[in-house]
Amino acid sequence: MQATTTRLDEVCINTLRTLAMDAVQLANSGHPGTPMGAATIAYVLWTRFLRHNPGNPKWTDRDRFVLSPGHASILLYSLLHLTGYGLTLEDLKSFRQWGSRTPGHPEYGHTPGVELTTGPLGAGFSTGVGFAIAERFLANQFNRPGHTIVDHHVYGIVSDGDMMEGVSSEAASLAGNLGLGKLIYLYDDNGITIEGTTEKTFTERVGDRFDAYGWHVQRVDGNNVEEISQSLERAKAEESRPSLIIARTEIAHGSPHLQGSAAAHGAPLGEEEVRLTKQALGWPEEPSFYVPEEALQEFRKALGHGHSLEQEWDERFARYRAEFGDEARLFTTVMSRELPPGWDRSIPDFAGETRPMATRVASGRVLNGVIDGLPTLIGGSADLAPSTETYLRDRGDLGFDQWNGHNLHFGVREHAMGNIVNGMALHGGVTAYGGTFLVFSDYMRPAIRLAALEQAHSLFVFTHDSIGLGQDGPTHQPIEHLAALRAIPGLTVLRPADAHETAACWRLAIERDGPSAIVLTRQALPILDDGARIREGVPRGAYVIAEADGGSPDVILLATGSEVSLSLAARDILEARGVHTRVVSMPSWEVFEEQPPEYRDSVLPPSIRARLAIEAALPMGWRTYTGDGGDIVGLDHFGASAPGEVLFEKFGFTPEVVAARAEAVAARSAGE
Amino acid sequence: MQATTTRLDEVCINTLRTLAMDAVQLANSGHPGTPMGAATIAYVLWTRFLRHNPGNPKWTDRDRFVLSPGHASILLYSLLHLTGYGLTLEDLKSFRQWGSRTPGHPEYGHTPGVELTTGPLGAGFSTGVGFAIAERFLANQFNRPGHTIVDHHVYGIVSDGDMMEGVSSEAASLAGNLGLGKLIYLYDDNGITIEGTTEKTFTERVGDRFDAYGWHVQRVDGNNVEEISQSLERAKAEESRPSLIIARTEIAHGSPHLQGSAAAHGAPLGEEEVRLTKQALGWPEEPSFYVPEEALQEFRKALGHGHSLEQEWDERFARYRAEFGDEARLFTTVMSRELPPGWDRSIPDFAGETRPMATRVASGRVLNGVIDGLPTLIGGSADLAPSTETYLRDRGDLGFDQWNGHNLHFGVREHAMGNIVNGMALHGGVTAYGGTFLVFSDYMRPAIRLAALEQAHSLFVFTHDSIGLGQDGPTHQPIEHLAALRAIPGLTVLRPADAHETAACWRLAIERDGPSAIVLTRQALPILDDGARIREGVPRGAYVIAEADGGSPDVILLATGSEVSLSLAARDILEARGVHTRVVSMPSWEVFEEQPPEYRDSVLPPSIRARLAIEAALPMGWRTYTGDGGDIVGLDHFGASAPGEVLFEKFGFTPEVVAARAEAVAARSAGE
Repeated sequence: MQATTTRLDEVCINTLRTLAMDAVQLANSGHPGTPMGAATIAYVLWTRFLRHNPGNPKWTDRDRFVLSPGHASILLYSLLHLTGYGLTLEDLKSFRQWGSRTPGHPEYGHTPGVELTTGPLGAGFSTGVGFAIAERFLANQFNRPGHTIVDHHVYGIVSDGDMMEGVSSEAASLAGNLGLGKLIYLYDDNGITIEGTTEKTFTERVGDRFDAYGWHVQRVDGNNVEEISQSLERAKAEESRPSLIIARTEIAHGSPHLQGSAAAHGAPLGEEEVRLTKQALGWPEEPSFYVPEEALQEFRKALGHGHSLEQEWDERFARYRAEFGDEARLFTTVMSRELPPGWDRSIPDFAGETRPMATRVASGRVLNGVIDGLPTLIGGSADLAPSTETYLRDRGDLGFDQWNGHNLHFGVREHAMGNIVNGMALHGGVTAYGGTFLVFSDYMRPAIRLAALEQAHSLFVFTHDSIGLGQDGPTHQPIEHLAALRAIPGLTVLRPADAHETAACWRLAIERDGPSAIVLTRQALPILDDGARIREGVPRGAYVIAEADGGSPDVILLATGSEVSLSLAARDILEARGVHTRVVSMPSWEVFEEQPPEYRDSVLPPSIRARLAIEAALPMGWRTYTGDGGDIVGLDHFGASAPGEVLFEKFGFTPEVVAARAEAVAARSAGE
Repeated sequence: MQATTTRLDEVCINTLRTLAMDAVQLANSGHPGTPMGAATIAYVLWTRFLRHNPGNPKWTDRDRFVLSPGHASILLYSLLHLTGYGLTLEDLKSFRQWGSRTPGHPEYGHTPGVELTTGPLGAGFSTGVGFAIAERFLANQFNRPGHTIVDHHVYGIVSDGDMMEGVSSEAASLAGNLGLGKLIYLYDDNGITIEGTTEKTFTERVGDRFDAYGWHVQRVDGNNVEEISQSLERAKAEESRPSLIIARTEIAHGSPHLQGSAAAHGAPLGEEEVRLTKQALGWPEEPSFYVPEEALQEFRKALGHGHSLEQEWDERFARYRAEFGDEARLFTTVMSRELPPGWDRSIPDFAGETRPMATRVASGRVLNGVIDGLPTLIGGSADLAPSTETYLRDRGDLGFDQWNGHNLHFGVREHAMGNIVNGMALHGGVTAYGGTFLVFSDYMRPAIRLAALEQAHSLFVFTHDSIGLGQDGPTHQPIEHLAALRAIPGLTVLRPADAHETAACWRLAIERDGPSAIVLTRQALPILDDGARIREGVPRGAYVIAEADGGSPDVILLATGSEVSLSLAARDILEARGVHTRVVSMPSWEVFEEQPPEYRDSVLPPSIRARLAIEAALPMGWRTYTGDGGDIVGLDHFGASAPGEVLFEKFGFTPEVVAARAEAVAARSAGE
């Protein structure tokens, strides 16, 4: 079966297998089976196809590699070590230990050469689609006749588990629709999952499914170097369809007792089986972590080869720069993850606007303005563009064979949208966003969490942010979603109160590192009149939007989004009754928490314990700001189907109710 | 094209179309296009195939109907009105209004005849798979030769949007694997989504995809009554594969200007277009909500027919009862959503156990015990059964053509698992559970929310509940998930502290209405010695597990799960230092909140402000219990890849650190 595999090939492949066994055994934790089974496809891909430069893991035009079964991390770490990314054998020996560069699953930003964080299944598959979209988009934006500066492939290894996850189906359907010819996935079809053989639960014909999505599908023996090699050649030659190469493999290949067994999935093979496997592979039992010199030499060719590749590209880019100076400058800027100078010049300032405006509408105007200064802005919605106001007018639609647009139609595929936005953000060169209703942030929550883990600059636009959306009812009305998003470490949640705040929140989201969620209303909100104060206040996370008469508050109202204007109306009632009321607009808890204590204490003076938070959402977490002396006007139940105004009234979000609750808080505080 | 459609058919179909137009127009909100386009398929299904009894919407052996595009709710409400479910024309006229029985999307428990809540796309599709599994399981459990008491179909209408959602792909793949021949979906293939035609983003060959899943696929003209009818006959005849009937339709069928247009998706047609459409359909312009007598008569035949169907079934069941008394009694009990007498007799009490045990292991023992008293227990895991301990040993695997088991293999399909569990729970007759790692609750969050909205008795088992899982690292370590689950209104979150609490939490989850999430450790935990106190305490949500020496606490430690034994260890240190320490175990916030104030105050006396909450998770929400005077030992950042013990130590979850923090809290409180 392996007639076409040379002895050197075998040595290299077995180096990957034995490193995996040894590392998992030493850690006494991990997943040896997949690395052993997928060693041949990984070897062929990394030594014969992947255009990368281990000497510069950040080389702009490198091919991107996706290891979707992140539990096979040791395979990737071994490849990074062997090809010369500076990961040492010592790093492999500290696999899965505190402080090591080789954690249980590959983590973006933690290990050089790791392009994305994987582990949650389907994430790699779908994030890779984002890489491939970014590549096509940038190629269209920057390449010029005779000057190809963006031209790379996205290669990946994907697993049975990835294929079962719905997010992969979503991403695969979209990738087929978009004709992403430079996306090439090797499917490690080992027929084994944790609960046993895939026969138990996964008998679909995967190849036919992908054919139906519009993919180019091939089937190969995953242990045959030449077959794999030829299939990769054919996949590269197929430029108008993404490729799936179904490589039949065996989990724990080479292990006398565990090859083909689910037992090899997520546990060390055991000392004895490691020994027997090495025997079977014709490998010395000692030392462990043995890397034959000839294998190392073969893998390390990547260093020289990569250096040449990058040098050639540098020369290409120099010629490009000579002819297209502006484009080259912009390209360098965006690929360095910097914002173009003056990027913000066309953010609308909403000066002179007086008519109430939904923050989703204001957001749409910001997006349609800012693209002038951010020419690599790209985004879209999960089939809700007219509702989420995420469409970039007159900027064209991205689609099959048509890459001169900025609007992506993700389809009703929220989860894939999340990972694709992450992929575009991680790829670099673009400013990427994706939008849906806030309630459907649930569908993409795994993607949002990954963005936070990776600190990807993903911009998530969530509209229809409360019961204020009205008649669609409780299935569409977010209640717990603000709390649930604020709960994700490293995610910035922004809920602007009017058009001015919306512009300021967008600026903040674009300027900050890491992902942001911008949470917007469906319904119109009054324009708060002090644009200048707002522009100063929003970047602090929370600020005094209306001071108490006389400057000494009896009570502080804290609110976000649509409840800020409600609170201002309540303040009018309160002041008329002689209750001096400060209103604090708090578009972002996370940003407020970053401010120095003096600033925070100036907004929420510790001495003023009469505080009322108002948010048409679950009260969870507000107690931190209201304290024991305060109170919260929130919602601890689902909504209902009725016009938004009716719901606000029925559920107690009226100036009168807020004023009464504030008075009670103030009275209690005064009586203490 | 409609040669085989009679005039009466047309009148009936146009009644559905015009009711939809009129109701959306009156509400000035809603989705007229899909109801108009799908009117013919709905008519054929409801008048010629659906075996139901409008006089008794809860008849046990009725066919289940799923409207997966829940935004087409007015179509379902019209059918319920016309066939005689007691929904009136007045109800249709109050569509989408406060307090009406006709909310924007169909809500289970709110409107008679609505079998499940839909709106979030893909939910209906996948929940229906749960219905079909429950039917096959119960048929196998209860039918006897010559006695068929469980024998019904699951019919549904599904939309383009459903087909794009990943959760439908997951559920479809599993349905194909299981050979669910009684599942029949009519795909309303209207080629239109909110952003325009499906060409923009959805060019895959859906039929071929479903064929690859192992479905029986047909294509029909969705306006041709006979074609639809014949395809449904063929679908019923196909007993070993689920059926997809691709019905080509036009959105807003009949509207001169909006037929086939995305503009008809989510907004009223407008007065003028309603008038023109009625003209085009040969319909009187006035009155609105016009129901021709002949149409009403035709639809209302369902009442008499349904009555006969149920009567026949009653007779069949009487004969069954005569011969199989025990089975009949059990069937009646479980179908009434009651627990069999003595159901809890075989919950293990862990008496005499002293060796530390992971709560996941305890949970597995509870499941394997309780099935003796709950013979219709059915469940499984998203390919993590060996890790989640959700396998029912020696109880058989459910699979294609083999229904005499209790274990479902969901595959790596968490989201579909959630909805399938919901479907089984809503179907009734079974106690259904599904398990995965806590971190992957994110994948199934939309399903958990729906369970909460529906108050479905879905039991979710989430293991590997903290950094304690160790080396798999931050992608697998939940941080924010407890907070995010507690944020969902109507969901009970239970995090037991040892084996005793695990048994008590399971009992609670099984006895309560609505969904529960049982959150369990990977790592072993000490057995807390007072089983009796625990069995009494857990049903109160929180209880004093260790009183302060002398009975007068200087400080209260509040903890859940693995942090209870940690807190008890900290208490030992504190007491040794003379700090009198009460430890409160708090397995469920929700259950605790239901207790009378006196009980709550007895556990957390308002006078004792020195309180320290300890939970290896995001602190969000704990401030409610600790108050301003308290403190929280939690995690506001992601975890890391290292052994669990190392992480607990590195992140400050040690008895010493907890004791020090508690002392600080006590000192601050004493100094006030």
